[in-house]
Amino acid sequence: MEPRVSIIMGSTSDLPVMKEAAEILNEFRIPFEINALSAHRTPDEVEAFSKNAYKRGIRVIIAGAGMAAHLAGVIAAMTPLPVIGVPIKASLDGLDSLLAMVQMPPGIPVATVAINGARNAGILAVQMLAAGDEELYSKLVSFKHELKSKIVKANEELSSVKYEFRV
Amino acid sequence: MEPRVSIIMGSTSDLPVMKEAAEILNEFRIPFEINALSAHRTPDEVEAFSKNAYKRGIRVIIAGAGMAAHLAGVIAAMTPLPVIGVPIKASLDGLDSLLAMVQMPPGIPVATVAINGARNAGILAVQMLAAGDEELYSKLVSFKHELKSKIVKANEELSSVKYEFRV
Amino acid sequence: MEPRVSIIMGSTSDLPVMKEAAEILNEFRIPFEINALSAHRTPDEVEAFSKNAYKRGIRVIIAGAGMAAHLAGVIAAMTPLPVIGVPIKASLDGLDSLLAMVQMPPGIPVATVAINGARNAGILAVQMLAAGDEELYSKLVSFKHELKSKIVKANEELSSVKYEFRV
Amino acid sequence: MEPRVSIIMGSTSDLPVMKEAAEILNEFRIPFEINALSAHRTPDEVEAFSKNAYKRGIRVIIAGAGMAAHLAGVIAAMTPLPVIGVPIKASLDGLDSLLAMVQMPPGIPVATVAINGARNAGILAVQMLAAGDEELYSKLVSFKHELKSKIVKANEELSSVKYEFRV
Amino acid sequence: MEPRVSIIMGSTSDLPVMKEAAEILNEFRIPFEINALSAHRTPDEVEAFSKNAYKRGIRVIIAGAGMAAHLAGVIAAMTPLPVIGVPIKASLDGLDSLLAMVQMPPGIPVATVAINGARNAGILAVQMLAAGDEELYSKLVSFKHELKSKIVKANEELSSVKYEFRV
Amino acid sequence: MEPRVSIIMGSTSDLPVMKEAAEILNEFRIPFEINALSAHRTPDEVEAFSKNAYKRGIRVIIAGAGMAAHLAGVIAAMTPLPVIGVPIKASLDGLDSLLAMVQMPPGIPVATVAINGARNAGILAVQMLAAGDEELYSKLVSFKHELKSKIVKANEELSSVKYEFRV
Amino acid sequence: MEPRVSIIMGSTSDLPVMKEAAEILNEFRIPFEINALSAHRTPDEVEAFSKNAYKRGIRVIIAGAGMAAHLAGVIAAMTPLPVIGVPIKASLDGLDSLLAMVQMPPGIPVATVAINGARNAGILAVQMLAAGDEELYSKLVSFKHELKSKIVKANEELSSVKYEFRV
Amino acid sequence: MEPRVSIIMGSTSDLPVMKEAAEILNEFRIPFEINALSAHRTPDEVEAFSKNAYKRGIRVIIAGAGMAAHLAGVIAAMTPLPVIGVPIKASLDGLDSLLAMVQMPPGIPVATVAINGARNAGILAVQMLAAGDEELYSKLVSFKHELKSKIVKANEELSSVKYEFRV
Repeated sequence: MEPRVSIIMGSTSDLPVMKEAAEILNEFRIPFEINALSAHRTPDEVEAFSKNAYKRGIRVIIAGAGMAAHLAGVIAAMTPLPVIGVPIKASLDGLDSLLAMVQMPPGIPVATVAINGARNAGILAVQMLAAGDEELYSKLVSFKHELKSKIVKANEELSSVKYEFRV
Repeated sequence: MEPRVSIIMGSTSDLPVMKEAAEILNEFRIPFEINALSAHRTPDEVEAFSKNAYKRGIRVIIAGAGMAAHLAGVIAAMTPLPVIGVPIKASLDGLDSLLAMVQMPPGIPVATVAINGARNAGILAVQMLAAGDEELYSKLVSFKHELKSKIVKANEELSSVKYEFRV
Repeated sequence: MEPRVSIIMGSTSDLPVMKEAAEILNEFRIPFEINALSAHRTPDEVEAFSKNAYKRGIRVIIAGAGMAAHLAGVIAAMTPLPVIGVPIKASLDGLDSLLAMVQMPPGIPVATVAINGARNAGILAVQMLAAGDEELYSKLVSFKHELKSKIVKANEELSSVKYEFRV
Repeated sequence: MEPRVSIIMGSTSDLPVMKEAAEILNEFRIPFEINALSAHRTPDEVEAFSKNAYKRGIRVIIAGAGMAAHLAGVIAAMTPLPVIGVPIKASLDGLDSLLAMVQMPPGIPVATVAINGARNAGILAVQMLAAGDEELYSKLVSFKHELKSKIVKANEELSSVKYEFRV
Repeated sequence: MEPRVSIIMGSTSDLPVMKEAAEILNEFRIPFEINALSAHRTPDEVEAFSKNAYKRGIRVIIAGAGMAAHLAGVIAAMTPLPVIGVPIKASLDGLDSLLAMVQMPPGIPVATVAINGARNAGILAVQMLAAGDEELYSKLVSFKHELKSKIVKANEELSSVKYEFRV
Repeated sequence: MEPRVSIIMGSTSDLPVMKEAAEILNEFRIPFEINALSAHRTPDEVEAFSKNAYKRGIRVIIAGAGMAAHLAGVIAAMTPLPVIGVPIKASLDGLDSLLAMVQMPPGIPVATVAINGARNAGILAVQMLAAGDEELYSKLVSFKHELKSKIVKANEELSSVKYEFRV
Repeated sequence: MEPRVSIIMGSTSDLPVMKEAAEILNEFRIPFEINALSAHRTPDEVEAFSKNAYKRGIRVIIAGAGMAAHLAGVIAAMTPLPVIGVPIKASLDGLDSLLAMVQMPPGIPVATVAINGARNAGILAVQMLAAGDEELYSKLVSFKHELKSKIVKANEELSSVKYEFRV
Repeated sequence: MEPRVSIIMGSTSDLPVMKEAAEILNEFRIPFEINALSAHRTPDEVEAFSKNAYKRGIRVIIAGAGMAAHLAGVIAAMTPLPVIGVPIKASLDGLDSLLAMVQMPPGIPVATVAINGARNAGILAVQMLAAGDEELYSKLVSFKHELKSKIVKANEELSSVKYEFRV
């Protein structure tokens, strides 16, 4: 089984955030790999990874990093695969990593999701793969239905909050 | 010819920004459509568009909007297709539209690019389509080489700036 | 008893904030309802709610949401009723939800209150209803007197803080 | 004819922004008044205005101010009428006036709209009055249809932008 | 003994911050008073206070408030006495109260100190009074010497931190 | 005639902003001096100035600077006279100079006014001097009346803006 | 043994942050000194320190301070030695100290590192010294290899996280 | 003549800003080179440059870039030479490039100067080289004297601004 999505994080301390992307991929039964590589501390490994990803069967890359978060942009510079960036909150409430990821100059996009939004990064990766895979697309349709069911169920619990003038 | 990418903008006044996405798609010879639809002023049309896009052959949606930019998120709520968001600068230097796009709650991602970064939105759409299309992938590889050539050429012009101690 | 105000929140996890709006409405004996509906996860329910609210006797809607908070704007797009927005603090100290609510484009206003300011949202709803209801208006006058009494009383406690040179 | 809405601005230099509220009220044929009063330079006049507004038949107040924009909050402190605040951009891109208006403490809400969003302030005032006035409510329904027509028409013009691969 | 400085806070919950101003005044043996008055909840009391302060012998006013902090500006609007503003951190890290205090429009200054900087507000009040009082001025000179002594002493403790290459 | 107020600016390019302080002092007939001194480029001159100001009869210092605006704080560190800081807008909309001035650590306050608020700095200096000078205090009372007259007059001009439904 | 690097902090409370710079210098066996000096509370000592540092053999200065962090800039104004600034987080998430350090006006640079980035300040000091010291340069090369080894090792631990679809 | 400083910019459009660094190096008669290299568009060239710089005699690198400015950090990741970063203003007033440069994670510092502060980057490079070069150090001492002379001369011009009460 060859991985189709690669999750990269700048430091293993980002795992509590990034594992939410892994959980989504697992839920959708999409083979993936997960590694820590730093744009600043292991630049050669990042280069080797980026240049070989397509040949190894990877179709989407998810990269999470904090502070002056260069990882996603640096990978995007070295592969034409779509790169999803997860800005990780480490200082300044994550505003620094958000801006360092999303504000890429013309030519090299990074598909950025919310601060610490690894779960959405996983879903976005599935959406990208599903564009050419009808079975996966159907699973996404069901997934959206479940999102709705959960909120409908939560709403029922809400009905237990009583006020004299609540109708 | 059926469009594969749909470019939506919140207002026709966003065209000077959003046309850069159109130009990239044109350059890559990817059939696309381009329309103005407002999450706030034409909500029913946005809903109809979002729910029918997949059946009509659309595989990626690019949505640009300014201020409290809801358009991308509202579309993403109604289709499992990947939605790329372009925050448009209309006030607060575009920080409001950036945050209103990228900070989507868990479940509904928007693949956000830089403020006014419609060119990168176009490239990202191509990257998504290329994941399952080797010919398109090869074009992207060439495209990256050209990015490099341009900067190498620009560098040559730079060499005309003379200083006594410039080596 | 038909509800006149509807409190909507993006997620049941917003209840600890949003219940302050409910408490104010209860205090003023205004019939209200309270539900969780998500602009992103239950768009059809939000639409049905928005389009039927007026007929059901609702005169003011209070909508609270966090992050890229689209809920208030999406409801406002689908009903001419006044919509009060409560930006909920979930990331970036609530600045993202504030901007995603208040910076609505021309045509579709959201009456935004402070970050986590659900109590003020409740008061604002009462003020809107009181504009055409003299009895309610009188209650508001008394309510303002009580605000004053509380601070006057608090001030008395303050007098117990002793310093040699405090006069 | 007695005014039902009062538009107040901190300085006559705010007129180019605030007149958009007047235009909306005029369009909806709602009697209104428009004056300049400064929370800081004419505090006694602001007090007299606020305390008499209800008796004079005013049902909604729209207040616009820039910088440390206190006007809306100061009026709201002295009347139970709903006060709509328009933060005016004078420095820091209007972020200072936005925060000085919207972040009101518990007890005294200001219904804040977008930076320079006087047009939306006018619409919001109409929405508040329409809650108890079916004829006005119908006009608002028509108004929303026109918003939609305008964007549909604008979209037609957009169709004149030609690209080889535009479908 | 007539108070010369008046400390006002928007809410008694601001006392833990504002008492640092009281401590400085006490240390300099300057008679002062300390009260809670809210620009929004007790506007009439704020007006009465502001208009009578000079006659009662007050020469400097220190006003602390949080969020959309209008208190200092509202007082400054109603008295020619110098008003020192202390922005109190209640939301957005205190940035809202800082901007709502310091960004006063031309004509009505507020002498703003750091977020939660009540100690500096007290010192600034002493400096203002000392401009016309040589004895007080001498005390300030000594006070500055003590600031220096404390850091010199602290530095000595620092010398206990040992490293092999610390010289 | 000995100057009582000293206006210092970090660079002569700040004169268009800082001259508004001079104009106010001139209007109140308060002897003043005006000079350019840089905390970073002429530290020794700043030190000499600060240490001699009191002896030379100076009672208030107004210091304006941009970017990492240290001038006011550096002067305040070397004299017990009250120092009024004017943050000058040179980059980042003046937010950098505002924070670099107002956020002084405990012990050394700077009385900060609005970004580019030199006019208010002048008024604040007058207010400080007036605390011990009844004649000057009376002038300030008149000055406040004039502020009011101006806005009342401006309001009259506003009355020329006609709308069918303006009352 | 004469110190070559001097670490200065604005307050001894900054030691938990600043000691990371000391640890790096110790690790590289570079003689250093560490002291607390305040730009605002001990300006004369800062001046004496700055003017004598070069003669005493100091070649790089590291200065850490919080809030309106003037220390680094004030030292840089009085010595031609390179000054590295460490913005310390004390309020506003450290944004105030960052801007007050990095935004130095033309003529007087401060080499600013990340908020609380004292470890990087230490490394930068070593890099500056190594430019003229081949032995030290070699140590830096090894240091970079270790950074890499650590992340490679951390990556191995990551491999213990198991998912069904992890490849 | 071998270059000792290398100026790199992300795009030739950055030249109007970055040439100020060149001018300073020229003024100090330090051999330098100046090139455009993009972290994102020419990653291989950036790598080759970074890995060979030391051998080629480069002792300090100055890197300027805008938006999500990765260039300085990417170079710093691949050489132990000190890297000075110049954040260039291209969007968001330069706040994005500032944070993307200065907020480097532990291990890889970038010596960041002000937004568009290329002149200071040049001076900082000279300061680094001067730490081991007495002649250069003397030139820096003279340079600082000239900074002072300029402001003293500018001050003289200021004396031509006349006011009746200017002393």
